[in-house]
Amino acid sequence: MADDPKREQSKAPSDRDEGGYGPGADLLARIDAAIDADDRPALNAALEPMHAADIADLIERLDPARRRRFLAMYSDEIDGEILSEIDESIRDEVLELLPRDVVDEAVREMDSDDVVDLVEDMDERERARILSALDASDRAAVRQSLAYPEYSAGRLMQSEVVTAPDHWSVAQTIDFIRAEDWLPEQFYHVILVDPRRHPTGYVTLGRLLASRRDATLRDLAEDSFRTVSAFAEEGDVAYVFNQYHLISAPVVDRDDRLVGVITIDDAMAVLDEEHEEDILRLAGVGDESNISDSVTETLRQRLPWLMVNLVTAILASLVIAIYETTIQEVVALAVLMPIVASMGGNAGTQTLTVAVRALATRSLSGRRNVWRVVRREAAVGLLNGLAFAVVMGVVAWIWFDGVSLAVVIGIAMIVNMAIAALAGILIPLALERAGADPALASGTFVTTVTDVVGFFAFLGLASSVLT
Amino acid sequence: MADDPKREQSKAPSDRDEGGYGPGADLLARIDAAIDADDRPALNAALEPMHAADIADLIERLDPARRRRFLAMYSDEIDGEILSEIDESIRDEVLELLPRDVVDEAVREMDSDDVVDLVEDMDERERARILSALDASDRAAVRQSLAYPEYSAGRLMQSEVVTAPDHWSVAQTIDFIRAEDWLPEQFYHVILVDPRRHPTGYVTLGRLLASRRDATLRDLAEDSFRTVSAFAEEGDVAYVFNQYHLISAPVVDRDDRLVGVITIDDAMAVLDEEHEEDILRLAGVGDESNISDSVTETLRQRLPWLMVNLVTAILASLVIAIYETTIQEVVALAVLMPIVASMGGNAGTQTLTVAVRALATRSLSGRRNVWRVVRREAAVGLLNGLAFAVVMGVVAWIWFDGVSLAVVIGIAMIVNMAIAALAGILIPLALERAGADPALASGTFVTTVTDVVGFFAFLGLASSVLT
Repeated sequence: MADDPKREQSKAPSDRDEGGYGPGADLLARIDAAIDADDRPALNAALEPMHAADIADLIERLDPARRRRFLAMYSDEIDGEILSEIDESIRDEVLELLPRDVVDEAVREMDSDDVVDLVEDMDERERARILSALDASDRAAVRQSLAYPEYSAGRLMQSEVVTAPDHWSVAQTIDFIRAEDWLPEQFYHVILVDPRRHPTGYVTLGRLLASRRDATLRDLAEDSFRTVSAFAEEGDVAYVFNQYHLISAPVVDRDDRLVGVITIDDAMAVLDEEHEEDILRLAGVGDESNISDSVTETLRQRLPWLMVNLVTAILASLVIAIYETTIQEVVALAVLMPIVASMGGNAGTQTLTVAVRALATRSLSGRRNVWRVVRREAAVGLLNGLAFAVVMGVVAWIWFDGVSLAVVIGIAMIVNMAIAALAGILIPLALERAGADPALASGTFVTTVTDVVGFFAFLGLASSVLT
Repeated sequence: MADDPKREQSKAPSDRDEGGYGPGADLLARIDAAIDADDRPALNAALEPMHAADIADLIERLDPARRRRFLAMYSDEIDGEILSEIDESIRDEVLELLPRDVVDEAVREMDSDDVVDLVEDMDERERARILSALDASDRAAVRQSLAYPEYSAGRLMQSEVVTAPDHWSVAQTIDFIRAEDWLPEQFYHVILVDPRRHPTGYVTLGRLLASRRDATLRDLAEDSFRTVSAFAEEGDVAYVFNQYHLISAPVVDRDDRLVGVITIDDAMAVLDEEHEEDILRLAGVGDESNISDSVTETLRQRLPWLMVNLVTAILASLVIAIYETTIQEVVALAVLMPIVASMGGNAGTQTLTVAVRALATRSLSGRRNVWRVVRREAAVGLLNGLAFAVVMGVVAWIWFDGVSLAVVIGIAMIVNMAIAALAGILIPLALERAGADPALASGTFVTTVTDVVGFFAFLGLASSVLT
């Protein structure tokens, strides 16, 4: 999609933030003032130098009331580029506030993959209304993409592709491209296809330009050529781009026929989202959490996880309750028991995080390799346990002047940190094997194990040794 | 860098893993068998279809003894592509095992940015030895990059750039490119420069190919044009690529003169690393943790963080110790106190994670926006506290049959969850303001706050109400 020439990058330093990226504080203040004063010309002037992505971010970060006011003033200027940058979390809200003809015009400007992204979560009635702005062939392309599963390569691809038969010469290909009037806004390769539209290779535009006019495309094709199935998961697609440094990849259907192309900027966005999901899931936050969410929305996402945590915390308390009388006799146990649990929880979270990351980057695969890592984590857990058994043994000894207490906490420390390491690696591995997202083994589950084991080991041992 | 034609992607399904990406279990088994049998031809045959990135991963995942054996068998086949894919964590080890001429040949094949990445952590003697393989001009380019700070755009860029004056025609430019014999392996734009080598815009190769031969480059330049300072931090560079969907960006020195270009695949790799750092730091794992690390290396990274956690856990225990006599009188307090601490810890971690992510994606900026989010988190914390105060109040009432105990735990829950929310948002914001990485506000620090506050609120209140 062509950038709007009016929206040329501003070079005035006061218009950029400290890092030099995104709108600066001065510019944001001017925009705020213009919204407050309902001053449309001032608002347009302030937004003129901004990139569509920054305008979309701005809209996202306004509180709902100001967003409404902003859109009332600026809706005529919203184009396809801004609309495709607006985050899902507020898109419905924005779409409702825009005049019908603005939406139609914006949708017509968008690449097919952006239209798919816009309409995929809508119900059929709404979707049909949006797609009615497109001409029949564009609409067919969008419908074709929507036929593939959610989060698949088929949803991510754009159907605008530049192809050529592999027997064409450089001159022929350049003439063909020059004569075309429907070229995609961005393309980096010519995809070679056979008469049945099976992709057989690709030629980079750089290679095409650098080669003699009579060279044949077949001879210029890159040695390494990878297609992506339209049914592949988008996370796998992002992995393939990152692993093999791809810039674009042809997408094929079940019969290996070319149906579209994915470019690296979309793969990069997916990689970013997948990371976001991992980090939010590990922390037990709904994976669609967003900075623009309202208080109610935020509560809706976080309460269920806290509820799960409450149940697991009560579970751990039940273990403590078993040893009530022991604690009453030796109250030092109540003082020290959170240390055992906390150390186990932290050690478990360390292992868990490394395991989840390794699974996400596909570096935890192959039986031999997995066992090496499991053995390593077990060894690390045991050694950590030994180290902190000594440290806490000494601390407990000095603090409460009791050798048996020191021995008890030392043993509990070793047991809990070894179990923490095993839970941290085995729970995510088991989830992955079962086809679930390993990041769902969030802190909550691993710390439940370490709390329960920690309290059991420490208090159980204490009750038989100290009383 | 050209892919080795021999290393063509294998299409045999048994050679791929279940997802169809990377080497499959069969292939890995064949490689293992070949290493065990010291069967060089079998090893070469098994590795032939593999991409350099997959071979590098394979080397990374072998345990040290097998890695040594593997390299003894395969070292002659290691080329620039494989070498530049090998992870930092094992690179020194691999370099030591390779014959001098293999390294020299590999280095000569690499792009300047990959050579910079290879030598930047070496001492000057080692660095000079590696760079001696290069001819004078390539060496100068690498030295120029190394003059920029670590983790800067200057280190990330490649110096091979295709430029043209903006008054050239399409025909002239294509003829120029066709005549050049030193073109970079991958390029997607022609950068327009003035006579003093200031970049003034760029033309995509697609646009160049699609335009009439007599069109002038100036008229084909993209509307949106962004340069990156060679001194910019690589994290900011990755952000700019992701935010503005750039494919490549010209890098300029302090005088705004073109010194190189960064392409999106490198930006994608940086984005991936930054995420990795965030997630590992949040979990209190050394941010260079790697799946190939040995037990000793892993311990070295994790022990310091666990030590920090031990100190903070002891701090929380000291709070409990103040109320020893209260606990002895009402032992139910020992049973319930971990629940208060755990709920606060979880709520704090949720807020913290969202805040760290928002800071990483630059969506937590602008005073008005920051205050909106702080207010939201405070409100969410208070409401969560209220909700769980009721739930836990009822649980405590039923469990221990005491109304005062129920009231005490309810109030402690509200206080701790509100404080947890504030700590979760304010600690990372303060770190960011102070110029530190907000992800360093790892779980450890936030849970210290929630443990201490939780125990204080619960036990302190109990000691004055219940005894």
